[in-house]
Amino acid sequence: MQRATHLGPGTPDSRRGGSRTIAVVDAIRQRLATRALSAGQRLPSIRAFAAAMGVSPATVVEAYDRLAAEGVIRARRGSGFYVADTALPPLALADREPRRPRAVDPFWVSRQSLDAGPGTLTPGCGWLPAEWMPQDALRRAVRALARSAGPVLSDYGGARGSPALRRLLQGRLAGIGIDAFSEQLVLTSSGTQAIDLICRMLLRAGDAVLVDDPCYFNFLALLRAHQARIISVPMTPGGPDIAQFEAILAAERPRLYITNSGLHNPTGATLSLQTAHRLLNAASAHDTIIVEDDIYGDFEPEPSPRLAALDGLTRVILVGSFSKTLSASVRCGYIAARADWIEPLIDLQIATGFGGPGQFAAETLTQVLTSGSYRKHVEELRARLGRARPRVAARLQRIGIAPWLMPRGGFHLWCSLPDGCTAIEVAQAALEEHVVLAPGDVFSAAQSAATMMRFNVAHCEDSRVFNVLERATTPPATRSSRRQSVNSADR
Amino acid sequence: MQRATHLGPGTPDSRRGGSRTIAVVDAIRQRLATRALSAGQRLPSIRAFAAAMGVSPATVVEAYDRLAAEGVIRARRGSGFYVADTALPPLALADREPRRPRAVDPFWVSRQSLDAGPGTLTPGCGWLPAEWMPQDALRRAVRALARSAGPVLSDYGGARGSPALRRLLQGRLAGIGIDAFSEQLVLTSSGTQAIDLICRMLLRAGDAVLVDDPCYFNFLALLRAHQARIISVPMTPGGPDIAQFEAILAAERPRLYITNSGLHNPTGATLSLQTAHRLLNAASAHDTIIVEDDIYGDFEPEPSPRLAALDGLTRVILVGSFSKTLSASVRCGYIAARADWIEPLIDLQIATGFGGPGQFAAETLTQVLTSGSYRKHVEELRARLGRARPRVAARLQRIGIAPWLMPRGGFHLWCSLPDGCTAIEVAQAALEEHVVLAPGDVFSAAQSAATMMRFNVAHCEDSRVFNVLERATTPPATRSSRRQSVNSADR
Repeated sequence: MQRATHLGPGTPDSRRGGSRTIAVVDAIRQRLATRALSAGQRLPSIRAFAAAMGVSPATVVEAYDRLAAEGVIRARRGSGFYVADTALPPLALADREPRRPRAVDPFWVSRQSLDAGPGTLTPGCGWLPAEWMPQDALRRAVRALARSAGPVLSDYGGARGSPALRRLLQGRLAGIGIDAFSEQLVLTSSGTQAIDLICRMLLRAGDAVLVDDPCYFNFLALLRAHQARIISVPMTPGGPDIAQFEAILAAERPRLYITNSGLHNPTGATLSLQTAHRLLNAASAHDTIIVEDDIYGDFEPEPSPRLAALDGLTRVILVGSFSKTLSASVRCGYIAARADWIEPLIDLQIATGFGGPGQFAAETLTQVLTSGSYRKHVEELRARLGRARPRVAARLQRIGIAPWLMPRGGFHLWCSLPDGCTAIEVAQAALEEHVVLAPGDVFSAAQSAATMMRFNVAHCEDSRVFNVLERATTPPATRSSRRQSVNSADR
Repeated sequence: MQRATHLGPGTPDSRRGGSRTIAVVDAIRQRLATRALSAGQRLPSIRAFAAAMGVSPATVVEAYDRLAAEGVIRARRGSGFYVADTALPPLALADREPRRPRAVDPFWVSRQSLDAGPGTLTPGCGWLPAEWMPQDALRRAVRALARSAGPVLSDYGGARGSPALRRLLQGRLAGIGIDAFSEQLVLTSSGTQAIDLICRMLLRAGDAVLVDDPCYFNFLALLRAHQARIISVPMTPGGPDIAQFEAILAAERPRLYITNSGLHNPTGATLSLQTAHRLLNAASAHDTIIVEDDIYGDFEPEPSPRLAALDGLTRVILVGSFSKTLSASVRCGYIAARADWIEPLIDLQIATGFGGPGQFAAETLTQVLTSGSYRKHVEELRARLGRARPRVAARLQRIGIAPWLMPRGGFHLWCSLPDGCTAIEVAQAALEEHVVLAPGDVFSAAQSAATMMRFNVAHCEDSRVFNVLERATTPPATRSSRRQSVNSADR
């Protein structure tokens, strides 16, 4: 099959649904998928599109007819073809209520970051640049496995995942005060999949789930996929507002509370010991289960209180992964929980994915984690971030962007924009200049963060980021309206 | 933290929830999880268990009290401790209705096969032995990637997965008559996860889903996880019984039909072209979407009709993976579907796993698939299976186990047991001799296959398999009852 651009003018295209027709059909589908064409919009005229695609008008007619037969587009007599405005029947998470502009949809930042081309800067993304990752240690580990005897490259591992990696995790968890037997651990394909499995085990559609406001935006996407009723509690620099937390638990009795305790995403907050204690008591009183996502644990300068440590893995489930410090390509997450929850989680993982991470991924991570170079690597990461954080904060402050707090570690800065700026507009303007930002409301179930933005300090080394931000936060319109408000204040 | 076996008699254990107590608690939990202790059963006496674990009776008392406080066990005055028979509130798939003995639960075969020790034979398992897999090609591919420039070992790939692998898949699909643009493909963590994402997109709890009877047992597990209403249609050697298929679609209007068309699991049947045509017409008339799992495609001697090819990926979604021919450790699956379904699937994959396969897995598979050695490898697999299949069938027939049909390819033989044998009893007897079998009802939503069994010919090279089968199919009790029935027939 050939792409449209490869079709010479003389290529025969006589068979039914020929490749030229398919190319045109596909081009339209792609425009729909990327929202370049949206519901109700008029399609290009047959003549114009034929010219653009380098095909005959008859081919475009055939393509449009085919899409019309599928109900994707509709012909209006004498006026051309229009995108059908019937919603797709399948669950399209991006389209679920409450409907939001794509720019503050939780998927927007993920997709823009994952698919960013080489010329794009991504201060909004949630991971470190490739050159910060331990490439040499990974290469060594992979080479060692390629030399090893046994079918580690071909076979399914056991249902709970690599015993070596689980033993290693046990030791790491003990270091932060969590006693977990190896039988309380299961490996998963990723940290996100770990939370997904827990939701599958514990949630039914319509169940209330509590998250922080703001919280990691993909928690919101995940909970939408589970058709949960999302409620949120405002964050403070010491954890969720505990009085509100207690009131919400009493009123709503959410099934789950999902959080990051050590270094909170996006705020960088750290849970205080006292708040942790009250939070656990409230959860116990109202039978709420807590999912503690420890994905940023290794970025902490010294370990902070973990809910799972206080609680002894009774009603707290700890999840984590190594995608932020080690590799997002060789993927593996984990769950530490009550032993009697592990069996149902394994069954669910077999049913929905036939097992967790590939054996190869688990063994590669084990190699790196046991090599000794990992400890040195995370120390270097912490030091490098410790230098970058104040430098980036100062540069942001110079253009009126102010951190909400100065985090103890990690790579996120949660910031307020200059007066008069809204994060969506700034993000949209920056995207035109190939800079992907993370507007605040993406992180907010309550949509309370319209003027906030999350920055990844490791992706703010390039001065272009600040040039674009300066332009995007002071566009002509805003500037004139600011001047007006200054003037009116003067009067 | 130490395991119970490492606790010397003098180790202090004074802190609350000390490691000895935890060891005892955990030992009980493990027995519960593995069903060594079941609901209502009496726990070992305190004195006996203390001796067995090498701890003091006080430690066992403390452990039992702790489990009793959690409601896991209950004390009966003067009689000891018993496992509580209250069901766990979380979704435990193994416990869902209709309740089945664990030996015919879909998870039984998976778990026994995944966790089989080195001394165990696994003729019931669903994959090839490690020595049949292309270990050298995998090692070469992994070494090549370890040498390559760029962050393939550390970074997330794009949201749709490796463009190189998707281009390669396009070519492979074109070879079986399926024209799919690269934008119609998305890579997933596994073939199972591919079907799971489709179910997430298209199913709501309670929706009817049609499967073959028998079908791949994990389809049943997956559909239980989605709380679908499972209905089934009897298989014939040419595909599902088409008259019944049409009647079921008219009566039940299932949302999905999930099948393997080329080489059906477990029967080895191949869909006939005529049945495929009628099946698609019925699906179109009643708006049923078809999921065609092509995981055994490369085992076919020559490609058979694919529903996806007939239909042009309009209402058929094709899924596949390389876990059966290449690697189940370096994991990657894929979906080929209508372009307008790919975006919702990608969003779902981000929400529930933050992307599909690791970039490293996708690039390793691409390396092997493009190296030229893959074609030779699958040719060798087909030849080797072609020799093993009749040999194993003949050995099975000698002990009264008869193949339902002789498949064109693949490694499965679907067989009937000798008269008077039930597959569960045979499987349970064989497991005591460390042979894992796959009893028929594991594959049957209608529980219509109590006397059938699936054999993997590649795992039947060891004569012990047949010795154990012979003993298990003619135990003393069965033998005497057979004699009786022979006698009564004589009269």
